[in-house]
Amino acid sequence: MKIARYSTGSGAAYGIVEGDTLFAASGDLLGGLTKGAEVGKVADAKLLAPLDPGKIVCIGLNYALHAKESGVTELPKEPVVFMKPPSAVIGPGETIELANPENQTDYEAELAIVIGKKAKDVEPGDALGYIFGYTAANDVSDRNLQFGPGGQWIRAKGFDTYCPLGPVIATDIEPGNLKIGSKLNGEQRQNSNTNDLIFDVPTLISFLSKIMTLNPGDVVLTGTPEKVGGMKPGDVIEVEVEGIGSLTNPVAAR
Amino acid sequence: MKIARYSTGSGAAYGIVEGDTLFAASGDLLGGLTKGAEVGKVADAKLLAPLDPGKIVCIGLNYALHAKESGVTELPKEPVVFMKPPSAVIGPGETIELANPENQTDYEAELAIVIGKKAKDVEPGDALGYIFGYTAANDVSDRNLQFGPGGQWIRAKGFDTYCPLGPVIATDIEPGNLKIGSKLNGEQRQNSNTNDLIFDVPTLISFLSKIMTLNPGDVVLTGTPEKVGGMKPGDVIEVEVEGIGSLTNPVAAR
Repeated sequence: MKIARYSTGSGAAYGIVEGDTLFAASGDLLGGLTKGAEVGKVADAKLLAPLDPGKIVCIGLNYALHAKESGVTELPKEPVVFMKPPSAVIGPGETIELANPENQTDYEAELAIVIGKKAKDVEPGDALGYIFGYTAANDVSDRNLQFGPGGQWIRAKGFDTYCPLGPVIATDIEPGNLKIGSKLNGEQRQNSNTNDLIFDVPTLISFLSKIMTLNPGDVVLTGTPEKVGGMKPGDVIEVEVEGIGSLTNPVAAR
Repeated sequence: MKIARYSTGSGAAYGIVEGDTLFAASGDLLGGLTKGAEVGKVADAKLLAPLDPGKIVCIGLNYALHAKESGVTELPKEPVVFMKPPSAVIGPGETIELANPENQTDYEAELAIVIGKKAKDVEPGDALGYIFGYTAANDVSDRNLQFGPGGQWIRAKGFDTYCPLGPVIATDIEPGNLKIGSKLNGEQRQNSNTNDLIFDVPTLISFLSKIMTLNPGDVVLTGTPEKVGGMKPGDVIEVEVEGIGSLTNPVAAR
């Protein structure tokens, strides 16, 4: 099933996407949605971020070629964990507002996991059972700030609008072999596959769940493949994940 | 006003603390509480973490002497920003469960800010108006993991139970001149004052609000003074902040 959240004009509602058609849905995102009447074409709807995450846990340097382009000489032996604040989330079509347009601010196409059940001390073999579905994310990153004094990445990656999510949550895809990429102004940039992840989805969920409880509605960003690059005001950036679709955002100066 | 959250046996309720007495309260934490009937002695109540934070934003190396003991040769010119996950929060009296008892796992006494109003692009002179109140925090930190590959602090500081908060939210204190310290098994360890903060509370709120929107119920940990130290199973750690009280937690192996 593909689940979208959309604007009803006066509020937000969940819907179900089939082909290019959006249907209304009743019920609760994580508890179960029932398909209702046709709303119209997906292209005519104003889609929103598919959920308001509890926490957003992120993995760095999780594709070998991206780690290399980042200047890392030895691949991580364990996942590198950081976070983005939920206040950074925007939906499809919303504007990425560059806080520092003079800085190198990169797009990063990522597969994002939506947690469905409380996960604590989960083994890799059981991990997929705790996952509700998957969406696409853009882990927007200010490189000038990322590697500054203190070395913590949250400031660089935590600005408002620096976490586009969407366009839908896909609940029936397998995460291990999905094409993932990005297009800047229509030109292909990143172009990889989740089968290149250093730590795959079950490994990540297990690893994280042994540190911190993952709660329903939490989101995990799994890392970005190589060929990240900078964005300027006026650009349009598109993140594509197979089985999920295209997450497209215009870029402007704050 | 001092606000506590306590267990009613079947659930949680907010109350108002006056001296050593706990009174019931009606209304909403951030919207306004009205004092009701006496519940009993505070010492007889099971206090809980005073809120479930939205996000927890933290500042590192924000007391000069602690930065020095951490091996930093030059003081930060801007606040060092990181996060802890809300899943790490526990209340007064709850057990800090050491995930890696063989590692150096330190207590860090901190003044924590509770945001009351949505803060975005706030100037320092206006910052105090966005604050609902203050509580105490223990930013429990696994030093063996903190400075590992990738250099991100969240894994080391994000384990479940690694963010005790409490015992109350004090709404009428001024944050700039408060004694702050910690006691391990009754012996004084940290012993400082918030007037030693490199970046004071108004500066932090302004700085953060220009990166990310701070929402009502978000919490900001302001950093810890010098003389942090390790905890072992069987220890009792107490964080004390003037005007807020003592946040006491036993320590055990996970």
